[in-house]
Amino acid sequence: MKNILVGQSGGPTAVINGSLYGVITEGFRLRDEKIGHVYGMINGIEGFLKGNFRDMDEEFTPETLELLKTTPGAYLGSCRYKLPEDMHDEVYAHLFESFDQLNIGYFFYIGGNDSMDTVSKLSRYAKMHDHPLRVIGVPKTIDNDLTLTDHTPGFGSAAKYVACTVREIAIDASIYNTKSVTIVEIMGRNAGWLTGASALARQFHSDNPVLIYLPEVNFNEEEFLKHLEKAFEKKRNLVVCVSEGIHDAHGKFLCEYGSDVGTDTFGHKMLAGCGKYLENLVRARLGVKVRSVELNVTQRACAAQISRTDLLEAVEAGSYAVISALNGHTGQMVSFRRISETPYKMICTLKNVNDICNKEKTVPAQWISCSHADVTQEFVNYVRPLIAGSIRIPEENGLSKFIYRKELQ
Amino acid sequence: MKNILVGQSGGPTAVINGSLYGVITEGFRLRDEKIGHVYGMINGIEGFLKGNFRDMDEEFTPETLELLKTTPGAYLGSCRYKLPEDMHDEVYAHLFESFDQLNIGYFFYIGGNDSMDTVSKLSRYAKMHDHPLRVIGVPKTIDNDLTLTDHTPGFGSAAKYVACTVREIAIDASIYNTKSVTIVEIMGRNAGWLTGASALARQFHSDNPVLIYLPEVNFNEEEFLKHLEKAFEKKRNLVVCVSEGIHDAHGKFLCEYGSDVGTDTFGHKMLAGCGKYLENLVRARLGVKVRSVELNVTQRACAAQISRTDLLEAVEAGSYAVISALNGHTGQMVSFRRISETPYKMICTLKNVNDICNKEKTVPAQWISCSHADVTQEFVNYVRPLIAGSIRIPEENGLSKFIYRKELQ
Repeated sequence: MKNILVGQSGGPTAVINGSLYGVITEGFRLRDEKIGHVYGMINGIEGFLKGNFRDMDEEFTPETLELLKTTPGAYLGSCRYKLPEDMHDEVYAHLFESFDQLNIGYFFYIGGNDSMDTVSKLSRYAKMHDHPLRVIGVPKTIDNDLTLTDHTPGFGSAAKYVACTVREIAIDASIYNTKSVTIVEIMGRNAGWLTGASALARQFHSDNPVLIYLPEVNFNEEEFLKHLEKAFEKKRNLVVCVSEGIHDAHGKFLCEYGSDVGTDTFGHKMLAGCGKYLENLVRARLGVKVRSVELNVTQRACAAQISRTDLLEAVEAGSYAVISALNGHTGQMVSFRRISETPYKMICTLKNVNDICNKEKTVPAQWISCSHADVTQEFVNYVRPLIAGSIRIPEENGLSKFIYRKELQ
Repeated sequence: MKNILVGQSGGPTAVINGSLYGVITEGFRLRDEKIGHVYGMINGIEGFLKGNFRDMDEEFTPETLELLKTTPGAYLGSCRYKLPEDMHDEVYAHLFESFDQLNIGYFFYIGGNDSMDTVSKLSRYAKMHDHPLRVIGVPKTIDNDLTLTDHTPGFGSAAKYVACTVREIAIDASIYNTKSVTIVEIMGRNAGWLTGASALARQFHSDNPVLIYLPEVNFNEEEFLKHLEKAFEKKRNLVVCVSEGIHDAHGKFLCEYGSDVGTDTFGHKMLAGCGKYLENLVRARLGVKVRSVELNVTQRACAAQISRTDLLEAVEAGSYAVISALNGHTGQMVSFRRISETPYKMICTLKNVNDICNKEKTVPAQWISCSHADVTQEFVNYVRPLIAGSIRIPEENGLSKFIYRKELQ
């Protein structure tokens, strides 16, 4: 009997451990019948290359495995490692040798765009060398930017966090009689899915956020100021949501107009500060009380706002990956298909990972309003079911009970 | 029978409406027997001066009153209005005339330092003029900086939010193998209670946050960098928590060293950016991956992290205020006394509001560690029971069910 190897890669989400839970429990369920061991890579493929992996049977008790499901962050640790483009690079031979030593028959990688690139390369290498390894990708990203899937696990909980938090910020802003603008900066470099989800914060006509700006369209400062002035005619306290990646018609990021711009360790432009930049702009031009709030990493790490729907789907994606591999599939990513709108119903399918990796799905133009400062009702209808339901996490000493890898303690 | 007038003032908390609920339900309970109407001021004393008030009986149904308890923000609206120091100012005569017109016998004001100043002045004016009005303050502030009370309603939920969020940020930071520093900036201009509460995020020895800086002690950049380097000997991903109000030995705020400093509408220095300043410092001096997170207004508005203990106490403070006024007390603030540590037990008492208003209670020196970069176990023991327990808020369309004043809709 072959063994399973599973890993996590890229940025974490509130439910990425839910997918890990799905892979492990499905593996355990089939153990001794169709599956031998379930191994976990520590820090993804990068850690595995250094010999860092663990037998999941020794890692968890039934109780800690249940806690894994609702612990945010990537339990196994993550990496941002890209396999070489050259399929003759010795790293591949080294990897497959390690797979054989551990008798790995099924490889699961939970991650986003870059991680699907790993799934694609490993499955292609296996095919090229007639190796029986089956490789399946399990999608994960708060950005919701993977193609060929209705949505991605992790997005629903992040969207719920954004909607809840923007709503609470709006309530906070509404208590004084003085005019004010609050700019909320939301994660999303090129895709505005998460920023658009702030529309779900609205509870009544003309509720905040009054303006929503996605990176899919060019941002125009003068039009923005005009929109604000118009909104002030009807409302005293305005909340505006912007993607971190909004840019002008020349493609220049708003935050680049500020001063604190750097480059992250991966050479990406560090996008922080468009909220602060707009705060200063509004203060200078409109002379009203203004502040900016950057939602930051809590968007992908908040357990209190896990969407029940998202968590269940994340678990299902993990277990479906195991079943698919056992059924002979490889080079595929688990994909979500929405088969009913009302009531919402989703099923898992498979899509060729080569058609997914290194691509980005942005918000379609017809879901962005003509004003370029809002999303349409169709967008809201699309996101609404994904944030449905909440979960209850056991509490200990006033905090949610999570689990930690031993070496981190 | 006399009527009740209740208002909210100052910044909101997640449970300030809990105290309003306490006043209203206690008033309703005694209605027709000892109490006539329960009126609510819209936007505090400032709104009331403009004739803006509401009969709470017409405002709520039994169902919406229950929702009020767990709705964040100040339902009645707030103000930052200070009554004149000159007790002969005509505003007082105007106010008491309005009180008499409405047959107000009991005045309750839910707020912090500045609000207790209003309670003090109104009760003194009544005494000076032999007016029978009884005035009681209900404490509220996430800052926990009111004197003569063990703690303040609102602090427990904000502390729980800080502890939970810092913990999730630490989990998020721990997933990569690369060295990193995360600076978390927490509310607290002069008092470090909320920043100190980040110590409760720790789950094991040497857990994050590794360093905690309060505004009660001077901050020294060189010592901070040395502490970081020492912490890196044991740990790869470091989380540091700082109060927004940390300052150097000359009393100069860290954020003033940055560039984005302004003054708020009340003439206070606008403290935002010490986290960003330290982020740049660490990057320049230690050359490691670093980011900063400002927790911002969500600290005082997050319903998902309401502490059950805090909510119950907030409600009790409101109802105790009503009972106290009916028992003949005036010029007092409801105060919490901790009568048992284990198990934690708290009772309500009264304290002279003149000894409380316009004063600030900071973290005592003996609760700050010798290194000036942490709080002591005594501090943790003090805060721990205040964050205990969570509540479940009914959900609608994927979001908590809150209520809004009609004119805001």
